[in-house]
Amino acid sequence: MKALVYHGPGEKSWTDVPEPKIQKPSDVVVRVDTTTICGTDLHILKGDVPAVTPGRILGHEGVGTIVEVGSAVSQLAVGDKVIISCIKSCGRCSFCQQGNFAHCLGDEGASGIGWVFGHLIDGTQAELVRVPYAETSVYKVPETVTNQQGVMLSDILPTGFEIGVQYGQVKPGDVVAVVGAGPVGLAVMATAGLYGASRIIAIDLDTNRVEEAKKFGATDGVNPASPEWKEQVMSLTDGWGVDVAVEAVGVPQTFQMCTEIVRPGGRVANVGVHGKPVDLQLQNLWIHNISISMGLVNANTTPMLLKLVASGKLNVDNFATHHFKLDEMMDAYDTFGRAAETRALKVVIDR
Amino acid sequence: MKALVYHGPGEKSWTDVPEPKIQKPSDVVVRVDTTTICGTDLHILKGDVPAVTPGRILGHEGVGTIVEVGSAVSQLAVGDKVIISCIKSCGRCSFCQQGNFAHCLGDEGASGIGWVFGHLIDGTQAELVRVPYAETSVYKVPETVTNQQGVMLSDILPTGFEIGVQYGQVKPGDVVAVVGAGPVGLAVMATAGLYGASRIIAIDLDTNRVEEAKKFGATDGVNPASPEWKEQVMSLTDGWGVDVAVEAVGVPQTFQMCTEIVRPGGRVANVGVHGKPVDLQLQNLWIHNISISMGLVNANTTPMLLKLVASGKLNVDNFATHHFKLDEMMDAYDTFGRAAETRALKVVIDR
Amino acid sequence: MKALVYHGPGEKSWTDVPEPKIQKPSDVVVRVDTTTICGTDLHILKGDVPAVTPGRILGHEGVGTIVEVGSAVSQLAVGDKVIISCIKSCGRCSFCQQGNFAHCLGDEGASGIGWVFGHLIDGTQAELVRVPYAETSVYKVPETVTNQQGVMLSDILPTGFEIGVQYGQVKPGDVVAVVGAGPVGLAVMATAGLYGASRIIAIDLDTNRVEEAKKFGATDGVNPASPEWKEQVMSLTDGWGVDVAVEAVGVPQTFQMCTEIVRPGGRVANVGVHGKPVDLQLQNLWIHNISISMGLVNANTTPMLLKLVASGKLNVDNFATHHFKLDEMMDAYDTFGRAAETRALKVVIDR
Amino acid sequence: MKALVYHGPGEKSWTDVPEPKIQKPSDVVVRVDTTTICGTDLHILKGDVPAVTPGRILGHEGVGTIVEVGSAVSQLAVGDKVIISCIKSCGRCSFCQQGNFAHCLGDEGASGIGWVFGHLIDGTQAELVRVPYAETSVYKVPETVTNQQGVMLSDILPTGFEIGVQYGQVKPGDVVAVVGAGPVGLAVMATAGLYGASRIIAIDLDTNRVEEAKKFGATDGVNPASPEWKEQVMSLTDGWGVDVAVEAVGVPQTFQMCTEIVRPGGRVANVGVHGKPVDLQLQNLWIHNISISMGLVNANTTPMLLKLVASGKLNVDNFATHHFKLDEMMDAYDTFGRAAETRALKVVIDR
Repeated sequence: MKALVYHGPGEKSWTDVPEPKIQKPSDVVVRVDTTTICGTDLHILKGDVPAVTPGRILGHEGVGTIVEVGSAVSQLAVGDKVIISCIKSCGRCSFCQQGNFAHCLGDEGASGIGWVFGHLIDGTQAELVRVPYAETSVYKVPETVTNQQGVMLSDILPTGFEIGVQYGQVKPGDVVAVVGAGPVGLAVMATAGLYGASRIIAIDLDTNRVEEAKKFGATDGVNPASPEWKEQVMSLTDGWGVDVAVEAVGVPQTFQMCTEIVRPGGRVANVGVHGKPVDLQLQNLWIHNISISMGLVNANTTPMLLKLVASGKLNVDNFATHHFKLDEMMDAYDTFGRAAETRALKVVIDR
Repeated sequence: MKALVYHGPGEKSWTDVPEPKIQKPSDVVVRVDTTTICGTDLHILKGDVPAVTPGRILGHEGVGTIVEVGSAVSQLAVGDKVIISCIKSCGRCSFCQQGNFAHCLGDEGASGIGWVFGHLIDGTQAELVRVPYAETSVYKVPETVTNQQGVMLSDILPTGFEIGVQYGQVKPGDVVAVVGAGPVGLAVMATAGLYGASRIIAIDLDTNRVEEAKKFGATDGVNPASPEWKEQVMSLTDGWGVDVAVEAVGVPQTFQMCTEIVRPGGRVANVGVHGKPVDLQLQNLWIHNISISMGLVNANTTPMLLKLVASGKLNVDNFATHHFKLDEMMDAYDTFGRAAETRALKVVIDR
Repeated sequence: MKALVYHGPGEKSWTDVPEPKIQKPSDVVVRVDTTTICGTDLHILKGDVPAVTPGRILGHEGVGTIVEVGSAVSQLAVGDKVIISCIKSCGRCSFCQQGNFAHCLGDEGASGIGWVFGHLIDGTQAELVRVPYAETSVYKVPETVTNQQGVMLSDILPTGFEIGVQYGQVKPGDVVAVVGAGPVGLAVMATAGLYGASRIIAIDLDTNRVEEAKKFGATDGVNPASPEWKEQVMSLTDGWGVDVAVEAVGVPQTFQMCTEIVRPGGRVANVGVHGKPVDLQLQNLWIHNISISMGLVNANTTPMLLKLVASGKLNVDNFATHHFKLDEMMDAYDTFGRAAETRALKVVIDR
Repeated sequence: MKALVYHGPGEKSWTDVPEPKIQKPSDVVVRVDTTTICGTDLHILKGDVPAVTPGRILGHEGVGTIVEVGSAVSQLAVGDKVIISCIKSCGRCSFCQQGNFAHCLGDEGASGIGWVFGHLIDGTQAELVRVPYAETSVYKVPETVTNQQGVMLSDILPTGFEIGVQYGQVKPGDVVAVVGAGPVGLAVMATAGLYGASRIIAIDLDTNRVEEAKKFGATDGVNPASPEWKEQVMSLTDGWGVDVAVEAVGVPQTFQMCTEIVRPGGRVANVGVHGKPVDLQLQNLWIHNISISMGLVNANTTPMLLKLVASGKLNVDNFATHHFKLDEMMDAYDTFGRAAETRALKVVIDR
């Protein structure tokens, strides 16, 4: 079969590889019908994630059709259309039993990290993919949900909702600021209404993205290049700051912005993937009664989000900006890699 | 009357000052029967808290007897024995209505900080003290509770419980580490059992304090001077770290220790008062699904803690190490200021 | 001044009464600009609420303008436009300090019931009304909120939201059934979206009301006169029942309906005012892991709901079906009393 | 092998039966080292549980040693000492994924009830037992925990803690009343301290049991035969009633007692198994802001409770009153069946 293979920093190809096989009784093999590319895949290609070794098939998002099931699989059958969650869960370890699938101790990689596809085992940018612990790691897709909608539930929707909205403890009436209007920041905005936010402020240097954010639920936009950006944010509150500030970029400056606009008693929810330490101004902040959360998605809200997409209560159609076929994978990477120029949010890659 | 007056950095005296008077209908005046000294008072004396200006009477902890009530006070009467909370609450502003008394907007100082005594208005290290918003800022003392017990409820018990245990979201079965076994760290240990901690690990450079901590609920002790201190902590868990790490010192190194011993999915509760930024290792921590909390006590659990002290379920007798009379205030400061040498925890100063 | 006075069962008049005066330092007097009638007022007129004695001015909902303030009132001023909450809160008693304003022990009636207007003291269906504990019992109205919107926040919106949605613990993705599509049932439907309900099922014998409910957020309607009504509800779920069933009628049969359609692990939230015991089928239900909640509104979410109305996130314009002037009060009662015929939801009565 | 077999109402024997075998890849077979008898077993023997058919081996509590594992079992091995939970969990269905194991849809019985042993499949009062979904239904026993301690974690400890304490939302400072001082009521008392109850009131007609309850954490006792029983309970509170009233008997009268002593804003947690409807006084209670919970144990806190037993923070040694060998099973039933006379709480039956 064909797959997108990582060959070391800066090197990748869409090439022939052996087909995956069932290795354990709880595995299934899925034919990939739709996949996409994540910003994390670009980081891997730069060599920033040393755990990914040459020869690894990339990709951790996908919708597909089951073609083979292991002997212990009874809740899934060949032919089932499923969303592959970016996080596998063994369902049995101490972390999984507390809903902390992000730190599943299941033996695929045995690292205490639930993200294995395109990381510790072969991923979803391929014609076929083996899924371990399938009964607790994939979700059947109702007929009313399209592949393009479903693939947004592999990673970005649950990440935005769990790590931004739930960890940020958004509650009815809250003013929420989201710093960074990329795909995951937009997923935060798209789901903040599920807890009744009264205002959602998109903060991004790119004026077009701020405008675009309004399609995803933002009620206001602020450009941090303005010297009055902070006053602008404050003026959208009662003067004391936002209830929840979500960091969705991953650099020290945006993290610090969040700590500056959050009100006493508020929450900073870090969603961004960081590469450097940040200077936490604890001498000022200790007295502010704030909390700062961070983490990898558990994807334990995927079934619930799927229900909301199926019932039409959660609109995810605006994330897909470009469409490709599997054998145009290299073009899809090119378009997604030049997102500032191509205005790509999510590129949808179909079989 | 006599009071302990701050005269600028390094300068204080027990001296004659005018008696306080009722200023607003919701005020009361309290005769101080018992007070104590807090580490924060020592910071003020060093000049670290510029909001405290020369001439200010210090002290934010106290038990006393009401001697005068304002015209709008109906729930309190002359003669009532009360605990004066270190945090005043107007009970009406948007912060108070959400239980966030630490940021009360009531007009005493109008700073958005509920801590006013010995800070923005005259404090409790005096023969008499005016208490604003008295009906929502003092608590009647049941007969079974002594003054010495009551004065621990002005600040350290609620601080340890709210900012350490509740913000740290301690839950039954949790392993809790407390870095720093001073009065507030010990108050964390003394109250962690209220949410069923399975182990409480005291971490302090002072071996005697670690030993002392066991009287307050610690089940284990670790000395961070040991090169294996971290392994020692991990061995008291399932190998993945503690559920809750409480910082009760206030320096960057102890904060970082907490982030290193907390398990994925765990919480760091900062109780310490910090004077410098800390370097947050977000490049490692973002994936750990931890949260970091911090804040000034709201003192909204004081009535509940008082109930537990009254019923004998919460033992606070071990905090008091030294006793003085009001007119020995300068000696009390001397003893408390040399705590490492005198082994002082709380000095109790009676009328 | 004129007011609507209760003269005993079946007897009322719009008549001259003395003007109210400030009685305590924390009182204000409000000129009523807008008021309305509640189903409870009709119950009182039938003689069903013995605590209401002849001579009492009725009404517990209103928006008005402050004309006089007591000596301890500093946060409110003459000329302020305010919403009068149906629940007064002293802000100081043990119940108020836990947010349980419904059981405020403040001395107006001293009954442990926060609902005093038109019940234990004179109410809002009058030209002027005295409001005790004003700083914690009224809310300033922003300029963007109309009187007609504001008066819905005196009672029905917080009742629907707190007792239906919050006590029912609605969470994102939930299927919510509301039995009874009267004003309070509709208020439940209007606010269930604040916690991300995926479906809201209106259940009522009146087909027109079920249709009307869709303007308030209902996604589906069921008529319980149908012998298949229960199957119809189940078919709108995964077959196991609704997550939350809200009783908004107040008779045993509708309460039992709720217990029959709630899924294992679900919640029944009783909002209705009941006059008789109900037969709880505990021999079947004990194993279902359900909870049943009930209560009088605390009105502690009023400021938050007001924020949502002001920001346009919560539409309350559809509740008002008829308009009257204060001196048409008797006509307003007539129209509201024949709601089945007049299709009245809320009658808005302006100065 | 030998087992305790139900032969229809009133009929049982300790008799020869075929040994169980692995049926599915996720099964294990356990040699029973310790078991016990539950009040539910006596109900079954009376014929009160029609789902139990003649020929069924009874028992849903046990500690044993794994003697065979299915092909999909990787986390457990032959020789492991395990606690068998009374509730099996498939770990995959929609109920299990929300922690609601009590309503597991796994195919053993396919009833939506997680309790299968001695009910829908053969149970633990036998030399060997087959355990389905073993990796999510048994818990390895640490060396420091005895069999007698472990068997209390099969059912009564999690039932008391989850259905009494957690569903009752006990929080620090609460006054908790437990009506019924049998094994499960005592388990509620033994675990209420994990959330910091300030008082635990044991209410039972049997004076000896009330006295015995103090070994399990009760601070006070009340005999409901006294005409002043209710006043006695109220006098142990602030006069407004208990925060949490736990029903641990299972008859209408005790349920009603709970609704009469709970304070406004409090919770009634029903733990008892009921055979008849109860008359809920909703005409009085609707205004009290109480909630009423009920349910079958999920046993999702078993690992946590096991940790507390292992660390010595939870004492369960007092539950065992009588000891038998497996082949004395009929004697054990006799002793347990005459509990009022023999003062049996739990009878421990060892291999």
